[in-house]
Amino acid sequence: MGKVAIIGLGLIGGSLGLAIRRAEPVDTEVVGYDRDGRVAASAVQAGAVPKAARTVEEAVAGATLVIIATPVISIQKVLAEIAPRLRRGAVVTDTASTKLSVMGWARDILPPTVHFIGGHPMAGKEKSGPQAAEASLFDDRPYAIVPPKDAMPGAVSTVVDLVSAIGARPLFVDAEEHDAYAAAVSHVPLVSSIALFNLARGSAAWPELANMAGPAFHDLTRLAAGAPEMSHDICLTNRDNILHWLDRYVDELYRLRSLIEQSDAETLFRTLAETQLERESLLAGPPRRKEADVDVDLPSPGEAFTTMIAGGWIRRSKEVADSLEEQAKERERKERLRRRE
Amino acid sequence: MGKVAIIGLGLIGGSLGLAIRRAEPVDTEVVGYDRDGRVAASAVQAGAVPKAARTVEEAVAGATLVIIATPVISIQKVLAEIAPRLRRGAVVTDTASTKLSVMGWARDILPPTVHFIGGHPMAGKEKSGPQAAEASLFDDRPYAIVPPKDAMPGAVSTVVDLVSAIGARPLFVDAEEHDAYAAAVSHVPLVSSIALFNLARGSAAWPELANMAGPAFHDLTRLAAGAPEMSHDICLTNRDNILHWLDRYVDELYRLRSLIEQSDAETLFRTLAETQLERESLLAGPPRRKEADVDVDLPSPGEAFTTMIAGGWIRRSKEVADSLEEQAKERERKERLRRRE
Repeated sequence: MGKVAIIGLGLIGGSLGLAIRRAEPVDTEVVGYDRDGRVAASAVQAGAVPKAARTVEEAVAGATLVIIATPVISIQKVLAEIAPRLRRGAVVTDTASTKLSVMGWARDILPPTVHFIGGHPMAGKEKSGPQAAEASLFDDRPYAIVPPKDAMPGAVSTVVDLVSAIGARPLFVDAEEHDAYAAAVSHVPLVSSIALFNLARGSAAWPELANMAGPAFHDLTRLAAGAPEMSHDICLTNRDNILHWLDRYVDELYRLRSLIEQSDAETLFRTLAETQLERESLLAGPPRRKEADVDVDLPSPGEAFTTMIAGGWIRRSKEVADSLEEQAKERERKERLRRRE
Repeated sequence: MGKVAIIGLGLIGGSLGLAIRRAEPVDTEVVGYDRDGRVAASAVQAGAVPKAARTVEEAVAGATLVIIATPVISIQKVLAEIAPRLRRGAVVTDTASTKLSVMGWARDILPPTVHFIGGHPMAGKEKSGPQAAEASLFDDRPYAIVPPKDAMPGAVSTVVDLVSAIGARPLFVDAEEHDAYAAAVSHVPLVSSIALFNLARGSAAWPELANMAGPAFHDLTRLAAGAPEMSHDICLTNRDNILHWLDRYVDELYRLRSLIEQSDAETLFRTLAETQLERESLLAGPPRRKEADVDVDLPSPGEAFTTMIAGGWIRRSKEVADSLEEQAKERERKERLRRRE
């Protein structure tokens, strides 16, 4: 028998609840908590969690797995609140979009008797809140797993099992890499989307622009509809990486601007054609990373979560990356960081 | 009996064929043409057009409605090719993303015995070519209709009927306005999407970035997958408007950059919260334009197209905007252009 606590029942927390339920884990109790009672009630009504605890302490008491699905900056406070109540051996994970701050808070705040493994599902949608939650939100999406250096393999396996159970694709990455990469593929897109929306919205011709806006404008400004708390926390906790990639984004815009301004038809066409080819390649499947995506031998999703909940995670040694593999990964990590530029 | 010719059988031309077929017009012959024989064969195979003409001249011979769905710059050549073959009274329209050049070419090239009405469906998708065509591509999308100043009301009605028949939302706009607005809601998004993709693709960390890319990156770089011919022609035929809005886009990016750099939490949060609210309002429905969206009393889509094909368009006087309305529109147009900034 295992207890899973989900702290924060918005789009991500609610969808996690639905996706866990879809996996039909055996002997499992799922409890949710949200500091906003109306959000908690909505989540229960949407079937995301069978019940909501009245306090965060009640939610985590006796839990074997705690998932913190609040905006980044709130995580620090949640960790402080739950630290004294966590059961020995509990695994704690989160879903925040930036990882370096979170890993530091967990290291400083949590007792050594529990295991923190960072997590970040690369999933989302236009609407927020538990009403918008979907069991399929994570299907086939990358889910970054960020173990601390001294992570206990069994604890890592627990999170891998969860990620597989909800249909996502586990992707090991360290916190520093994560934040640099997320700035490029998630946070700068977020800022660009907000800027694009404000550009049109701020114009005196907005009524005309809005009426002429088609799916291109709609898709490209989708991220501007995200919860402001989340975007705000992302910008403040991943500032330097965002500024770095934002400057390179503007450089890239200027490169295109200059081709357009000069009406350099040939170079412009070649650039556009190359871009289309590369974008189509991505659609066909992402390029392989140097190391294998996942270092462990994954069981099938349903099986995995069932096994985990049955309490077997510490014994599942075949899924444990041994120390040699860890060393190899560390070398590769340094190599990647060096060529991140 | 009416004959409709579709010149250019890519995503848009193919989808037009399917959408017209879905409307089940009576006594109508649809003929397609594409200068690339393989594209034409694919379109026939996909059911987009029942048959493909061997030459563009054969396609337009005797046609009452000609739709040119090629990339912008090719339109000039197509107009020159079809001009001598057009039946007296034929209505010619196009689907290009920029309108000022097209309207000029039509004025210069076509004989006075035919009617050119510009058109631009605000619709598209990630893939191009007739294999990607869909009957529902235009459903509930804005479809800009750009009549020349001296347009014959019956010819305008024909295009309105077509737009309604395929499920789109007719939107009257003049060529100059169209190109300015399209730069903001369509062409700068296109450039921003291409830049965002190239930013990540050009990085040495691309394999890692691609593996971590989720739906945000996917949606925001969707336009980078568009046909390069189309993007190229857009950039060259709407250069000044694109440069204007691109510079304002970079200004907006810098405004956000500065809030992030200064970690100005309060202003940042307020900006993000306002943006979210405004974006949600757009999702609920675009703001009303000053004038009515459509000046004519529209029949239901199926009915409209059936009537048109039955040859009644010139007699449908109730759909004709009278000269007083035209004058009012002209005043409003000038007002809009004045505050386009």
